[in-house]
Amino acid sequence: MSLNPHTASATRYVFWTLAVLCGLISIGLRAAEVTIWRELNPVNTVFVEMPEGLVVIELNPAFAPETVKQFKQLAEDRFYDGLSFYRVIDGFVAQGGDGSDLGGLSNIPLVDAEFEIDWNEEFNYIHVQSPDMFAPETGIIDGFAVARDPSRGKVWLTHCPGIVAMARNDSPDSSRTDFYIVIGQAPRYLDRNMNIFGRVVYGMDVVQRIKRGPTLGNGIIQDETESSRISKMQLLSEIPEEDRLKVYVVDTSKKGFKKLLEDRLNRKQKFFHNKPPKVLDVCQVPIAGRITK
Amino acid sequence: MSLNPHTASATRYVFWTLAVLCGLISIGLRAAEVTIWRELNPVNTVFVEMPEGLVVIELNPAFAPETVKQFKQLAEDRFYDGLSFYRVIDGFVAQGGDGSDLGGLSNIPLVDAEFEIDWNEEFNYIHVQSPDMFAPETGIIDGFAVARDPSRGKVWLTHCPGIVAMARNDSPDSSRTDFYIVIGQAPRYLDRNMNIFGRVVYGMDVVQRIKRGPTLGNGIIQDETESSRISKMQLLSEIPEEDRLKVYVVDTSKKGFKKLLEDRLNRKQKFFHNKPPKVLDVCQVPIAGRITK
Repeated sequence: MSLNPHTASATRYVFWTLAVLCGLISIGLRAAEVTIWRELNPVNTVFVEMPEGLVVIELNPAFAPETVKQFKQLAEDRFYDGLSFYRVIDGFVAQGGDGSDLGGLSNIPLVDAEFEIDWNEEFNYIHVQSPDMFAPETGIIDGFAVARDPSRGKVWLTHCPGIVAMARNDSPDSSRTDFYIVIGQAPRYLDRNMNIFGRVVYGMDVVQRIKRGPTLGNGIIQDETESSRISKMQLLSEIPEEDRLKVYVVDTSKKGFKKLLEDRLNRKQKFFHNKPPKVLDVCQVPIAGRITK
Repeated sequence: MSLNPHTASATRYVFWTLAVLCGLISIGLRAAEVTIWRELNPVNTVFVEMPEGLVVIELNPAFAPETVKQFKQLAEDRFYDGLSFYRVIDGFVAQGGDGSDLGGLSNIPLVDAEFEIDWNEEFNYIHVQSPDMFAPETGIIDGFAVARDPSRGKVWLTHCPGIVAMARNDSPDSSRTDFYIVIGQAPRYLDRNMNIFGRVVYGMDVVQRIKRGPTLGNGIIQDETESSRISKMQLLSEIPEEDRLKVYVVDTSKKGFKKLLEDRLNRKQKFFHNKPPKVLDVCQVPIAGRITK
């Protein structure tokens, strides 16, 4: 057995380059064929600047109007600037805010539960999976993974990685300033129990660099100087128009996205020696985002 | 609405400290009551040293004997020292090795498919969920999430976050040196298609800091100087006994772990305003690891 990892080095760059070029051409063709991008509305787009990098969140006022309203107000008030992610459990959540969720005094008002909403035939709803393990049905509405119970006529945002929701105490109506981003396998047991109000559309790699706390200490970082900190959080609409970056996400209401779902459901590549079961985990469907000048 | 994030600062530390203390006491009591730790066998424990930190992998020769044999030999040969994670897609996988998976020449032998094994009544098997969306049944054997098909008498390691598996080409028998770690929502459609041979038991936060590549370029990092690199990979058994750290994982065959599963299946806390459905995602069950001198 060769001990030399560099045996292949003379040829690997050629192969890599070819592989990447082919990949790009193929993706390019498919993109031209099928992918349509939707530009985010600046009033529902939040830029979170951190020393680790830029994180962009799309807010969802359709599902959590009061939570979004308060979060936007807090962002505009520069409330979050300088605050840290003080409770971070690897594989679970990164929680930031002023810590009032843990019992500190605060005069920021509480927000009532916004756990689910009435089904509406007007939604840009794309069906993903039925039955799902945690709900009768899952789908996607405007880039957000949702779960649905047709018998009750209800639909709710579901706890996929990258989702942004409010922390709370035992009372369902105790959301305030502290929010969390899901950074691990979807904790879907929290569905219909939290005010989910947004999702990270850009910079999840940055979120994954947020400093973790000790699992045995409930993820709480004791030494505040060690925690990852929000330098500045602002709405995209607050930035002068000429300085704004544009944010796009894949338009999940368009044919191209449906084709992507079908391809994932029916994997025809030779690679799959054992054909996967024809099911989709709504949290394992990538919905790309990008930013441009 | 208050604009001052520091209103609560006078009291928050007291509350945090109390919360953490109570958490620790409660966890301590529960730990004393129920959690039993299993020390890893040094011959199946791999220390991966990176500038980002230490990652510890437990190998699983019961499910992938030939893959483990070759990986151990490569580690002992210092094959991986200096190699990089050259293909890293956020939310999916971090892939490292010599890149021969992408077509470069290599004289390292290929390893045949080790996708599933025969069921054996002697396994330390803990049932988790039946039916699961991707398999008739899921469970845990010695800390590893597995899926099972009783009708075929087969069981296989399943693609949860932290799992370590071999990359391959279209041939099922083309595993070689390139391996990947799952860093996002479980890509379970890959189950029964890859040689899974280990899992990260310590340092997933470090794995999450591995430099990502561009999604549109299939995650391949073009500039090798930018990629995260393995400084040293060695078996714990290669380290002189007096210098070895000890690695422990929760013993999933013991009563304490069964209790944890039951508690997660039947969430009785007042917090859950809407009781979650009585199902468990086998990839969302935490199985703790720790290291000590």
